[in-house]
Amino acid sequence: MTIGQKTWVIPEGMIPGQSLNDDPAFLSHETACILNANDSDAQLAIMLYFADREPVGPYAVTVPARRTLHLRFNDLADPAPVPRDTDYASVIRSDLPVVVQHTRLDSRHPNVALLSTMAFPAEGT
Amino acid sequence: MTIGQKTWVIPEGMIPGQSLNDDPAFLSHETACILNANDSDAQLAIMLYFADREPVGPYAVTVPARRTLHLRFNDLADPAPVPRDTDYASVIRSDLPVVVQHTRLDSRHPNVALLSTMAFPAEGT
Amino acid sequence: MTIGQKTWVIPEGMIPGQSLNDDPAFLSHETACILNANDSDAQLAIMLYFADREPVGPYAVTVPARRTLHLRFNDLADPAPVPRDTDYASVIRSDLPVVVQHTRLDSRHPNVALLSTMAFPAEGT
Amino acid sequence: MTIGQKTWVIPEGMIPGQSLNDDPAFLSHETACILNANDSDAQLAIMLYFADREPVGPYAVTVPARRTLHLRFNDLADPAPVPRDTDYASVIRSDLPVVVQHTRLDSRHPNVALLSTMAFPAEGT
Repeated sequence: MTIGQKTWVIPEGMIPGQSLNDDPAFLSHETACILNANDSDAQLAIMLYFADREPVGPYAVTVPARRTLHLRFNDLADPAPVPRDTDYASVIRSDLPVVVQHTRLDSRHPNVALLSTMAFPAEGT
Repeated sequence: MTIGQKTWVIPEGMIPGQSLNDDPAFLSHETACILNANDSDAQLAIMLYFADREPVGPYAVTVPARRTLHLRFNDLADPAPVPRDTDYASVIRSDLPVVVQHTRLDSRHPNVALLSTMAFPAEGT
Repeated sequence: MTIGQKTWVIPEGMIPGQSLNDDPAFLSHETACILNANDSDAQLAIMLYFADREPVGPYAVTVPARRTLHLRFNDLADPAPVPRDTDYASVIRSDLPVVVQHTRLDSRHPNVALLSTMAFPAEGT
Repeated sequence: MTIGQKTWVIPEGMIPGQSLNDDPAFLSHETACILNANDSDAQLAIMLYFADREPVGPYAVTVPARRTLHLRFNDLADPAPVPRDTDYASVIRSDLPVVVQHTRLDSRHPNVALLSTMAFPAEGT
């Protein structure tokens, strides 16, 4: 089964520098939830765009066949970690069709707020 | 009236294992809100994808003609319940066109957070 | 300027029966935010679908030329008010192209939670 | 790399007039997150639509080449500031393809609520 698109865009990005506590579940984070429903591994390359500097990347990510990866931007490290409290945007390219959804958990203030939206499928435009 | 698509994808899925209290209204849950505007019942098959194991399903679901079903993933049981605090993704296939929206209510922390997005209509891609 | 589509679907609908207080700004509500960028008034017909009864409607709504209407489902009255704490879905048809976004403010628990997503543009599918 | 569309619509708009405190990070705000992945600057023109008055604009905005701009509607000033606690909608036109995501942070009540959705790409409809 092959479903999805090869290029996805998430214009909103900002990892809050503060969190409720140290529990990983409640750490403020930005996530790209990726589904690879193919029978082969998908190789992804992520570029990050900023407000006031050149783009950084590509970040290489593999999503195995028939698996989902809920990728925390917090965990990206190579070629550089994602700065906190900084606006960014991301473009995700895959060699196989995938589907990408964007979620943020913000626990700066002593509560938890969530946002989510499907990423924008840019292929063919 | 026939509106919608036959294949929908929700890459984000995670049912929090904790809740505010036992009130079903405030139980942490993941929902696929499905509209079947057709004059015939729609037969759906849901596959769940995980980070580290093979897909599970299909889960068989019927949405009657001219009805909406706000399906809680919490309630899926056959072939297996959905594990809590575990990342997953879902692919929903229907024999008739339907429309699917994804919502999570997260009441782990002593407040309530909501997220929602239209699922991704994968048909024809 | 003509932008948008003539048919929009919002599968998720549920007006919480409780609210934080009586302040209209914090009353739990479901909203369809509609933009009519045309130079003529748009006539809309809204049908509501439920889990266990026949659809109700059409509700007739006018969005004036070059105006936005943030329509609270709470305020729909003819042919019948929208029941609270009840799952529903909506199909919005317009004689002119419009754009529709769905938002809920949930203030049942003593905090405020928000969700929003673009409605699904069903025209041509 | 050219990705995106030239016309985007956000039907939902309302800048809460109250905030948690004076910290800019927690000021209630509406944001249009814009990615310009082109190698040239993009010139944008934003029109605002209201419930009971004629549209206001265009607001001229530049997004530099290979940059993202997380534009707060709160900061728009010319030709007029955006009224608070007032429903509006926006149409964003760009001379180059861009991608737009809508986010609101609402901190009126003593907590923080978030919503986000991809804007509606209206080009070609």
